[in-house]
Amino acid sequence: MPEFLTLLPPDEARALLLSHLPGPIIDSETIDVVSSLGRVLAEDVVAPHSLPEFQRTTVDGYAVRASDTFGASDSMPTYLKLIGEVPMGEAPAFEIAPGQCALIHTGGVVPLGADAVVMLEFTQSAQENEIEIFRAVAGSENVLGIGEDVIEGQIVQAKGSLMRPAEIGGLIALGILKVKVVRKIIVGLISTGDEVVHPSKSTLPGQVRDVNSFTLAALVEQSGGIARAYGIVPDSFDVLTASAVNALSECDMVLITAGSSASARDLTADVIRSLGEPGVLVHGINIRPGKPTILGVCNGQVVIGLPGNPVSALINGYLFVVPVIETLLGMLPKPKATLLARLTVNLPSQAGREDWWPVKLLRPEPIPAGADSTSFPEGKVEYHADPIFGKSNLIFTLASADGLLRIPPDATVLSSGEMVEVILL
Amino acid sequence: MPEFLTLLPPDEARALLLSHLPGPIIDSETIDVVSSLGRVLAEDVVAPHSLPEFQRTTVDGYAVRASDTFGASDSMPTYLKLIGEVPMGEAPAFEIAPGQCALIHTGGVVPLGADAVVMLEFTQSAQENEIEIFRAVAGSENVLGIGEDVIEGQIVQAKGSLMRPAEIGGLIALGILKVKVVRKIIVGLISTGDEVVHPSKSTLPGQVRDVNSFTLAALVEQSGGIARAYGIVPDSFDVLTASAVNALSECDMVLITAGSSASARDLTADVIRSLGEPGVLVHGINIRPGKPTILGVCNGQVVIGLPGNPVSALINGYLFVVPVIETLLGMLPKPKATLLARLTVNLPSQAGREDWWPVKLLRPEPIPAGADSTSFPEGKVEYHADPIFGKSNLIFTLASADGLLRIPPDATVLSSGEMVEVILL
Repeated sequence: MPEFLTLLPPDEARALLLSHLPGPIIDSETIDVVSSLGRVLAEDVVAPHSLPEFQRTTVDGYAVRASDTFGASDSMPTYLKLIGEVPMGEAPAFEIAPGQCALIHTGGVVPLGADAVVMLEFTQSAQENEIEIFRAVAGSENVLGIGEDVIEGQIVQAKGSLMRPAEIGGLIALGILKVKVVRKIIVGLISTGDEVVHPSKSTLPGQVRDVNSFTLAALVEQSGGIARAYGIVPDSFDVLTASAVNALSECDMVLITAGSSASARDLTADVIRSLGEPGVLVHGINIRPGKPTILGVCNGQVVIGLPGNPVSALINGYLFVVPVIETLLGMLPKPKATLLARLTVNLPSQAGREDWWPVKLLRPEPIPAGADSTSFPEGKVEYHADPIFGKSNLIFTLASADGLLRIPPDATVLSSGEMVEVILL
Repeated sequence: MPEFLTLLPPDEARALLLSHLPGPIIDSETIDVVSSLGRVLAEDVVAPHSLPEFQRTTVDGYAVRASDTFGASDSMPTYLKLIGEVPMGEAPAFEIAPGQCALIHTGGVVPLGADAVVMLEFTQSAQENEIEIFRAVAGSENVLGIGEDVIEGQIVQAKGSLMRPAEIGGLIALGILKVKVVRKIIVGLISTGDEVVHPSKSTLPGQVRDVNSFTLAALVEQSGGIARAYGIVPDSFDVLTASAVNALSECDMVLITAGSSASARDLTADVIRSLGEPGVLVHGINIRPGKPTILGVCNGQVVIGLPGNPVSALINGYLFVVPVIETLLGMLPKPKATLLARLTVNLPSQAGREDWWPVKLLRPEPIPAGADSTSFPEGKVEYHADPIFGKSNLIFTLASADGLLRIPPDATVLSSGEMVEVILL
């Protein structure tokens, strides 16, 4: 069985694959900012004007000249003449002269002449049109200056940013309603295997349903791509090649999930070799599950051969397909969602091999009131990471997992009680 | 300013709110499993048949009777008669009698009579129709039994499960193509504030654009809801009440973002009090930002008054709105995505108050090859958490943040160099 002559470490395999990409997709589309959640910016966004556009106060109180409040205290208040109230949503019609003040509400325009705001709680109405000030304020205290958030012409969102609720809010605040985003990455999915049938069919003895087209489609969708299914192809070089050529002409990248037998896997490698240069970059990765994964680039397009086993295909999808999609989208680096948890058992691994274990995350202690796990954690709630064992890679072990635990290549065991990092699914 | 007589701790405030919910939404809809990503199951899903449906092998090799291999070793191989090859996708037409074996590929049906599979690498073709076996196998070794993944009638996905790629795969593997999910939660959004204008308008001095309707809509969408906007309502009790009554009749819950002045915030509380029983549950939370947040339940429907400040509104949306949506969906508890990082500065806080700081997550060290942050981390990559300071809550401080750092109520400082938990945005 000279199937895998050299098994590359997963990080090296991934780096090799990404280094062969010609670069991010440059096609973009202009969409409404309100519909841009989860999309990636295709160009820098520049502020058309400063924000705030006017001097605003951040508190309820009295707009004053800071110098007028110098030395004011509880025992020695300053008295200022009240000349009016700043209306919300309008510039006040008056200016503040020395010795004067005006009532102002959070968000209101600081009148000309004034340079600070004394909070209401440090004031008192003395007599008609006179306000007692019990505390001195410094210049610009409780005042947001023009451009303190962003300045006209400043890059407010860089190309490659992911649009989240706050990014949407930032652009809306500037009156930007349209935005140029990278178009979605189109990923072709081909299933092979003489034993594989469409999920709508009832299975005969020996047949299994095509799971991979659907799990990978969901993964692609979750990662900013569009999945296009090319169906189940028989284990034939010519038919598989024709299907892959067709998929490559319509997609940015193609995933082939191989039939599970060794000969079916070899077939996938042969097909990838025939599709273009450089062809197969990696055939065999020192990882479990996923050893038979094939990474290829054919004339600038990524073609990945994933194992037929659904768990293996999906885990290797997280590890190798998602990074390609993110690279093609030109996404700026972002931290992955992880959770530190205490391992419940000893977990041995083979030296040199990277293992990925589906784990359940359990809370060993009673949950404090209000810190129900649908809400934010009460401080650092400690989770237990409980690996899900099974004879082989069974799809429901993954469906019941909260995350994946990595055993790095240089470890031969993770010990019970150790704190481990779990990648959330 | 007797605005907030008692400030509740955030966890207590959230627990009080959730305890007043009548229960999860029970309306469901039946959708295609392939379109169910991110939806929540409305009922338990039961396996219509066992999985695997037949005895399969997990390796390439020879199907044997385990007892025939007893004592086999490199120096003392066992010889078995090869009677055929198991075809992929079909039940073999033969049985294995004592002293016999058959070639079998990963995923193939283990023939009747055989109870184990010897891996190909521990065998050798001796002479025609004879195989040398160099290793003994135990009964059921390298064989998946019927029902080893799931057994017919077993609950494979519980009500309240979130549909992720693996859950989709599990149901597809069982031939389940339709699934009953909880309908999406409809959240009505009302903006108030005489200074607030629609983002398509250019602003006059003193005016700001309505950001909250859009950030909260994105948050709702991200959390499994549908946002319905009711526009910008003037600071008038009658008009705001009419708008809220209308929204409550069409939605599951309503969010009112108050104008930023104290009187506008009081108006929101008065309106919520008038909408039904018990009305305002919490008015004032010991949190920054978000002290003026109002939590209410009116005749079984949640009404939340959020501060007008966009950062404050969004952070309190994460803290109070998302848990309500998840509770209404009946979602099973799941861990939140967090990341442990080293704090770069001292961060003081007021005793008793919970603070949420937008932070940037930075990687202090050069990134190892292949562990580019678009991919999975090379072991435990340590991040630095760098709080984003700003005079007030500026929307672009949040738009440039990777996550939120919590300073718990009992802490008066988080120290530079401390490991802190960051909630990813």
